[in-house]
Amino acid sequence: MGFSFLILMLTIATAVASPIKDQILLLMPHSGSAGHKQSDLNCLSWRLAVETDNLKEWYQIPESCRDYVKNYMLGNQYREDCDLVTAEAYKYAKGLNLTGDGKDIWVFDIDDTALSNIPFYASEDFAFGAKPYNSTLFNEWLEEAAAPAIPGSLQLYEQLIGLGFKIVFLTGTREAYTESRIKNLKEAGYIEWEKLILKGDNYTGNAVDYKSSSRKELEEGGYRIRGNVGDQWSDLTGSNLGDRTFKLPDPMYYVG
Amino acid sequence: MGFSFLILMLTIATAVASPIKDQILLLMPHSGSAGHKQSDLNCLSWRLAVETDNLKEWYQIPESCRDYVKNYMLGNQYREDCDLVTAEAYKYAKGLNLTGDGKDIWVFDIDDTALSNIPFYASEDFAFGAKPYNSTLFNEWLEEAAAPAIPGSLQLYEQLIGLGFKIVFLTGTREAYTESRIKNLKEAGYIEWEKLILKGDNYTGNAVDYKSSSRKELEEGGYRIRGNVGDQWSDLTGSNLGDRTFKLPDPMYYVG
Repeated sequence: MGFSFLILMLTIATAVASPIKDQILLLMPHSGSAGHKQSDLNCLSWRLAVETDNLKEWYQIPESCRDYVKNYMLGNQYREDCDLVTAEAYKYAKGLNLTGDGKDIWVFDIDDTALSNIPFYASEDFAFGAKPYNSTLFNEWLEEAAAPAIPGSLQLYEQLIGLGFKIVFLTGTREAYTESRIKNLKEAGYIEWEKLILKGDNYTGNAVDYKSSSRKELEEGGYRIRGNVGDQWSDLTGSNLGDRTFKLPDPMYYVG
Repeated sequence: MGFSFLILMLTIATAVASPIKDQILLLMPHSGSAGHKQSDLNCLSWRLAVETDNLKEWYQIPESCRDYVKNYMLGNQYREDCDLVTAEAYKYAKGLNLTGDGKDIWVFDIDDTALSNIPFYASEDFAFGAKPYNSTLFNEWLEEAAAPAIPGSLQLYEQLIGLGFKIVFLTGTREAYTESRIKNLKEAGYIEWEKLILKGDNYTGNAVDYKSSSRKELEEGGYRIRGNVGDQWSDLTGSNLGDRTFKLPDPMYYVG
């Protein structure tokens, strides 16, 4: 366990105990510790381009933006960005008329939508891109079933159930991990659902096709997708998207 | 001409002469002049939700974010956000194979895509939402034909022509303003195009339908829409979107 890991853990501990003020972290993108410009890439512009789907197939955080992404994810701004989206989703959901036949559903992605993988992406195993993504290590993290809920998403989930929606979790996680996903969802507070859809262990299509065909099956089964929330554009593009989609922020990784 | 207008003009003059550093303006959303929090609305979160199409049918800038939007639009960050998007569009365009038959087109929206309406939205007539939008005044601004080019968009336009693309301008401006639009485009540096499509003076459909049907006609005419750039999601949703879309930032107004 090296020195940098200790620093990282201290940073996380500090962030949890007393979240970094976004006013401070927003000063950081352009500046190194001595205040000099680190790179020509404006990390705010990069993040905006990621969130608006202008950048596609980016498979790592640019080196000059790793500190920026770390501070964003561990600070207040990420949480407030999520909260505004989920509050808007609730405002929209409240205005809908439900038929009461139990077929009005809301689709939730799991990773970095219902549950947060920040503990993995912040850990020494990835360190916000300082080490390459390693699926073996990520799968170990999945098996731990230790991901916390994203607070705004859990609140939205509870509000939607209160309004009478049925919840469908639709995840790219392979079916081999079904038990750990169920354990994790329940321990994080997602205690009930209409369906939990995982990806077949041998499925080879891409994320957009997998999610589109899963939603198509839901609609063919008589369900009405009234809302759909995810952190990746591949959750929110393709077919059978539902009446309205909501994009949560995620500058940590790209799923195409 | 009141005191606040003078201040605004001084702000614009200062911004043009020496753009406000985004590091400074990013400190502003939460703080009034005495450093106190003005509102619970996080203006960065609001802007992100606008840009990701999570907020729909917002027809005015929230009062507590007007200063924030003003500083964003007049500062470096807006320009850099545009530059990153148009640079990405060029990177994508460079990788395409053109057939050479003159049917590979790129669709540009005009308002706040090819041309900037910042001088209008910053002026006393609107003052970034401090006064309500007034279509009569906006139409007078259109007739002036004085909108400058957005620098990244003009550069992209020139690069695309260099690569062999034909340009189609597709705007929600009514046909009654055809002459002033032509004058404005040419004076801003957009000297040639394959087509300039304006909205019929009696058309009553919404923006998504108007733009979708216009793009459909283009495709039925044998054109291939290889790229499509706009500042509103109504430019980039609906049908016949083209092979790839690019969203420029615009927190000034919403076109549904």
